[in-house]
Amino acid sequence: MTSTADHLSAREDRVWRAYFETQVLFWRRLAQQLQQDTGLSEPDFAILSALVEAPDTRLRAFELSGVTQFEKSRLHHHLNRMIGRGLLTREQCPGASRGTVIALSPEGRGAIEAALPVRAEHIRRALTAPLDEGQIDALTEISETMLAHLRTTDGTQDETEGGCG
Amino acid sequence: MTSTADHLSAREDRVWRAYFETQVLFWRRLAQQLQQDTGLSEPDFAILSALVEAPDTRLRAFELSGVTQFEKSRLHHHLNRMIGRGLLTREQCPGASRGTVIALSPEGRGAIEAALPVRAEHIRRALTAPLDEGQIDALTEISETMLAHLRTTDGTQDETEGGCG
Repeated sequence: MTSTADHLSAREDRVWRAYFETQVLFWRRLAQQLQQDTGLSEPDFAILSALVEAPDTRLRAFELSGVTQFEKSRLHHHLNRMIGRGLLTREQCPGASRGTVIALSPEGRGAIEAALPVRAEHIRRALTAPLDEGQIDALTEISETMLAHLRTTDGTQDETEGGCG
Repeated sequence: MTSTADHLSAREDRVWRAYFETQVLFWRRLAQQLQQDTGLSEPDFAILSALVEAPDTRLRAFELSGVTQFEKSRLHHHLNRMIGRGLLTREQCPGASRGTVIALSPEGRGAIEAALPVRAEHIRRALTAPLDEGQIDALTEISETMLAHLRTTDGTQDETEGGCG
């Protein structure tokens, strides 16, 4: 029997376990509360949030794969289910012979606008309420340090330009 | 146009964005490096890690749903692909008229034993190397504070007893 712990120092193993286990419970909690209080799943929320902030509240389907981390066929099925629930519509790209865009419906706009303050309250409860101001500032600084390091050493480009065509 | 940021204070919004964006890049990085250096995906790694630590390196399939966060049918397909690659075997539960267990194959054991020190090095590079000792200890304390709060307020029970039968 072996584990990554056998290959990390005691200090490294402790921070890794704490960081990892917190994330698992944090996201499980946020997903449960979102479903319970708004009827939206995490992928629903990610897709509606991306659309409400997009130009003209429209995006190509492939632009939504980054926000859900879904493979193409799974994203396609998920979008179809959201269309069936009236949250989204699929439209022809104007001027393009082929290609469609995913657009926010009025119902989808209503759902995300109602969900955003609810989500903010869930974040507040799980992330900032248990911490004092010094811990919040320390977590910001530590996360920004990790983020800067990850960005500097990241060789991939996942961002894609928006728009039809 | 609106966002959760409109409903959080500047301090809350900053820590939330930093915490969230760090996690996205952190897990993307770990997944890329794991695939590149070991040929295993994150779900492969999670399943093999759970099995190598399980009694007799065997678990019921439903016990693996918690480690992958996969729905039942997706987990079933994933396990079948791993069986096809020779990493796992499916066995009849001893003494049970129906019910099977998923067992680590010798190839699966070799793969996870080779992957664990590689994974530890990836964790070290992305999590602890960019931080000084004070930041590591602060992140441990902050994560453990959040974790204690999440556990205290968690009403759900996801853990299930192991074993056949």
